[in-house]
Amino acid sequence: MLTEVHTPHDLKRLNPAELATLSAEIRAFLVASVSRTGGHLGPNLGVVELTIALHRVFDSPHDSILWDTGHQAYVHKLLTGRHDFSRLRQSGGLSGYPSRAESDHDLIENSHASTALSYADGIARARQILGVRDRSVVAVVGDGALTGGMAWEALNNIASATDRPVVIVLNDNGRSYAPTVGGLARHLSSLRDHREPAAGPSPAHPGVFAQLGLHYIGPVDGHDTAAVEEALTTARALGAPVVVHCVTRKGCGYPLAESDDRDCFHGIGVIDSVTGQLIKNATAPSWTSLFGDELVQIGAERPDVVAITAAMLQPVGLQPFAEKFPDRVIDVGIAEQHAATCAAGLAAEGLHPVVAVYATFLNRAFDQVLMDVALHRAGVTFVLDRAGITGDDGPSHNGMWDMSVLHVVPGLRIAAPRDGSRLRALLREAVAVADVPTVVRFPKGSAPEDIETLEERDGVDVIGRFGSGSDLLLVAVGVMAGTCLDTARQLAGHGIGVTVVDPRWVRPVNPALLELARQHRTVATVEDNVKVSGVGAAFAQAVSDNGIDTPCLTFGIPPDFLAVASRSQLLAEVGLTAGALVTELRRLVTGSLTTQ
Amino acid sequence: MLTEVHTPHDLKRLNPAELATLSAEIRAFLVASVSRTGGHLGPNLGVVELTIALHRVFDSPHDSILWDTGHQAYVHKLLTGRHDFSRLRQSGGLSGYPSRAESDHDLIENSHASTALSYADGIARARQILGVRDRSVVAVVGDGALTGGMAWEALNNIASATDRPVVIVLNDNGRSYAPTVGGLARHLSSLRDHREPAAGPSPAHPGVFAQLGLHYIGPVDGHDTAAVEEALTTARALGAPVVVHCVTRKGCGYPLAESDDRDCFHGIGVIDSVTGQLIKNATAPSWTSLFGDELVQIGAERPDVVAITAAMLQPVGLQPFAEKFPDRVIDVGIAEQHAATCAAGLAAEGLHPVVAVYATFLNRAFDQVLMDVALHRAGVTFVLDRAGITGDDGPSHNGMWDMSVLHVVPGLRIAAPRDGSRLRALLREAVAVADVPTVVRFPKGSAPEDIETLEERDGVDVIGRFGSGSDLLLVAVGVMAGTCLDTARQLAGHGIGVTVVDPRWVRPVNPALLELARQHRTVATVEDNVKVSGVGAAFAQAVSDNGIDTPCLTFGIPPDFLAVASRSQLLAEVGLTAGALVTELRRLVTGSLTTQ
Repeated sequence: MLTEVHTPHDLKRLNPAELATLSAEIRAFLVASVSRTGGHLGPNLGVVELTIALHRVFDSPHDSILWDTGHQAYVHKLLTGRHDFSRLRQSGGLSGYPSRAESDHDLIENSHASTALSYADGIARARQILGVRDRSVVAVVGDGALTGGMAWEALNNIASATDRPVVIVLNDNGRSYAPTVGGLARHLSSLRDHREPAAGPSPAHPGVFAQLGLHYIGPVDGHDTAAVEEALTTARALGAPVVVHCVTRKGCGYPLAESDDRDCFHGIGVIDSVTGQLIKNATAPSWTSLFGDELVQIGAERPDVVAITAAMLQPVGLQPFAEKFPDRVIDVGIAEQHAATCAAGLAAEGLHPVVAVYATFLNRAFDQVLMDVALHRAGVTFVLDRAGITGDDGPSHNGMWDMSVLHVVPGLRIAAPRDGSRLRALLREAVAVADVPTVVRFPKGSAPEDIETLEERDGVDVIGRFGSGSDLLLVAVGVMAGTCLDTARQLAGHGIGVTVVDPRWVRPVNPALLELARQHRTVATVEDNVKVSGVGAAFAQAVSDNGIDTPCLTFGIPPDFLAVASRSQLLAEVGLTAGALVTELRRLVTGSLTTQ
Repeated sequence: MLTEVHTPHDLKRLNPAELATLSAEIRAFLVASVSRTGGHLGPNLGVVELTIALHRVFDSPHDSILWDTGHQAYVHKLLTGRHDFSRLRQSGGLSGYPSRAESDHDLIENSHASTALSYADGIARARQILGVRDRSVVAVVGDGALTGGMAWEALNNIASATDRPVVIVLNDNGRSYAPTVGGLARHLSSLRDHREPAAGPSPAHPGVFAQLGLHYIGPVDGHDTAAVEEALTTARALGAPVVVHCVTRKGCGYPLAESDDRDCFHGIGVIDSVTGQLIKNATAPSWTSLFGDELVQIGAERPDVVAITAAMLQPVGLQPFAEKFPDRVIDVGIAEQHAATCAAGLAAEGLHPVVAVYATFLNRAFDQVLMDVALHRAGVTFVLDRAGITGDDGPSHNGMWDMSVLHVVPGLRIAAPRDGSRLRALLREAVAVADVPTVVRFPKGSAPEDIETLEERDGVDVIGRFGSGSDLLLVAVGVMAGTCLDTARQLAGHGIGVTVVDPRWVRPVNPALLELARQHRTVATVEDNVKVSGVGAAFAQAVSDNGIDTPCLTFGIPPDFLAVASRSQLLAEVGLTAGALVTELRRLVTGSLTTQ
């Protein structure tokens, strides 16, 4: 059946039995395909019937269907003609999120949660202004995403006009990764348990949505295609803002996922689809687990250390801490702003919060880090996982802006560990700081083998000396240390004398690093962060401000959004490999050696 | 009576008649004092009884009273012993916001809205972890601030535990500057109109707060001290999260303010307290009004241009546009995140949104500008008023980070007009860009007289040539043009030949500017933005990347929070005056002329 569906129109002629067959085929396809490539499995298994119903009731792309967070759009991809999942999340393959380059049916590419309702409000307002009345706007949002503040801002706006229709499909599976937290989750649960669905769409319903002035339809069994279709048809006909509350099960139809309390196989690596076991490539421990284990050690010694996650306890490595110290771990929901300011409140009472978050998501809380944490001189440690290029989750998951943006926060200190030993040490140094915020950032994946320090100079680790003379000081930021050592080794073969250093703390600039710059003929910095306004730019400015005339070369990621590809492919593409650095540095350093 | 109140304890022995007298005296004091200095008048007149009641029921600072947004803390200052308002919002005088340096009764210094509930949640969580049971946490938040997403994130968290008390005092005056918008405002209005207050605190109340699991008490007449005290006493005794809904009138007791529909004398300059008329100093038009007027012109020519404000229609200059084009102006509430992403939605449908916001508040929407606008290549113009140093509203109102933070956003273009003519021209250039976001930023206050262009070089305005030779290229960013011309004139007197240029668009770097750098012996950039990662740093990096060896000096604001003072005082303090620049540049340029 699936092979006959190429556009949403093909769905409209199917009878209930055929739709049931199609659903089963889609589930079988997803389990087989995603287990081979890795990707988001649980969320997509939960929206099979919901997506079919959406595409039967609405006429995409004439009507706009917006997928919040985007990782639950696989079924949508299948129903809009994208059947080749063999290179999912790989260069040249399908994106793991909606992609406008792939299809006219895709609209939002941002994988950050809670944004779809704001887009929907904008689109609906535009159509009202333009007098377009025949095109529906539908936003599919999870219950987890509703814990994010943006969603509230949007609900308040969508509810502001009774004659500007937006259909909000609440895909309520009760979870983000883990079960959704807070008062809203409890409220949704009470709506779910209210076995009698509302007789009709009603603004007089006692639920939160109706109180705000939105119509409410539900709860609807999200796995009953006909029931969802009926609710959506009613919603469309209303011509007013409406919430269609669909109750779904994450992982539905794949028992291993349904029964997994951790996250229902939310995002998986390559697995054996029968056993659900990960087919591992990596044997070295991940940065995430090294952090998580060290934080447990620190927690045992420091009763004042508490951990905060924005609905990602397991992915950011806090599960072991939560098991050991359940009273000292806080899941705030998908609410990075609250995470930062709540941390400031905890710090004001003498605790030391460790906010563990993917680097890309801290951008959500920039103002709070600046104003609520730094201005208040709160001792809060932000641990940024997935910093630098992550690659396969696309442009909005790369954590390549953190060191630039955070550089302007007064007092804030940034550490970029080069290996597991440094991660442990720098994390301990960070939680020892009581009066300013600190950041510890590291990439996705396995930590490399430890890289020895040859000599420590007032906090700067000299990790390599190659060739003779002081032609080049190579400043390696964090995990770029290995690449820098390879680069230096090769440059020495070309007669260039190189010192490789790891500054450990990249902000503030260490005076010892400036002294080293003075002693070399050229400096080059290498970071897996955007080059603009990054560590290198700040260091070059400090060099200049201190009257040191050593020229500074900065290597980093260009200020562009990166296409989907693996981390190593993208590092090669942006010139952050030893080969590319050797070529560039031979040219530039030899040039500067000649002209000076 | 007021002169006898030095600590909150002094309030506790007063009888109802004395309290009424005290309230009247406080109002008279506020009107007389704030009309002389300028400051926030309307909000403070609205919280006189509420603040008295808070300090009679709770025991600050043993109990924590948190003021959201902070501009309504004047009465709190008076009741905690701060009676000298003569230098309010001036260097050495009282801050216009809570200040921990002023008093142990002050906790939150950030003037950005919607944060207090998150702090409160953090403090309450800390006390639960530490086993502290006898210290209450009270957060006072306006109905306007509840339209901000952070407040929702915090409500969801506060509601997550029934045994972790937080008293949320909802100061509901129905307004931000203008009336509060959206579904929430309508809901609060329905609660206000529900004349029978809830019999007791009840989680079974049909309101939104109770639905989330918070107790709800109210509505209470916020100008009836005894009623507020009774509600707060009940709330404190509950030992659970509770909302006390107090209905107040902004400007209460000062008829001119109460009857002002614009903003109830929200924030005023120096006025005649009898007539309410502004005693003007400035005669030149403000940057804000120049922007507002030009946008009306553009709106008449371009039916696709729509304007967005985050609850600040009048302050950001959109009132004339709203009057002319009421269907093309959107007030989203105090919701910068939504403003940005809603704009992306509007742009997706072919409109061109102009988001007008104070520079400091755009930090709230950094992630949305990056991911929802720039990644989607949406043509959205952000107009940043109050960019650079604003001064008298304290560290959190300075707009000194925008050009650093926005520099990393792929594709985004930034214009910094030097005068009114350039503002008009650059605004037009910005709204002509359809495929990337643009930013136009300008400071608070009156625009200077127009500064003539001597010669235009491919988009770079040469605005001054002084002395002979090409010793120094002085790159003036926006309003620093006047200072740079003065600087250059004086440097010429010391034998240094200076060219002064205004790049107009400071991002991307204009190749013509690089060419000019090549033709000079030294470059200096001057910006009223933090020096770290700012325009100068990016330009220096571009100079170096293009193999130009002209040394680059960067002048800007140091990466610290600035104390309360006037803009001119602070510019002098950070060295951004002609006098200071001349001294530094004589030393540095002469040095570099010698060594090269």
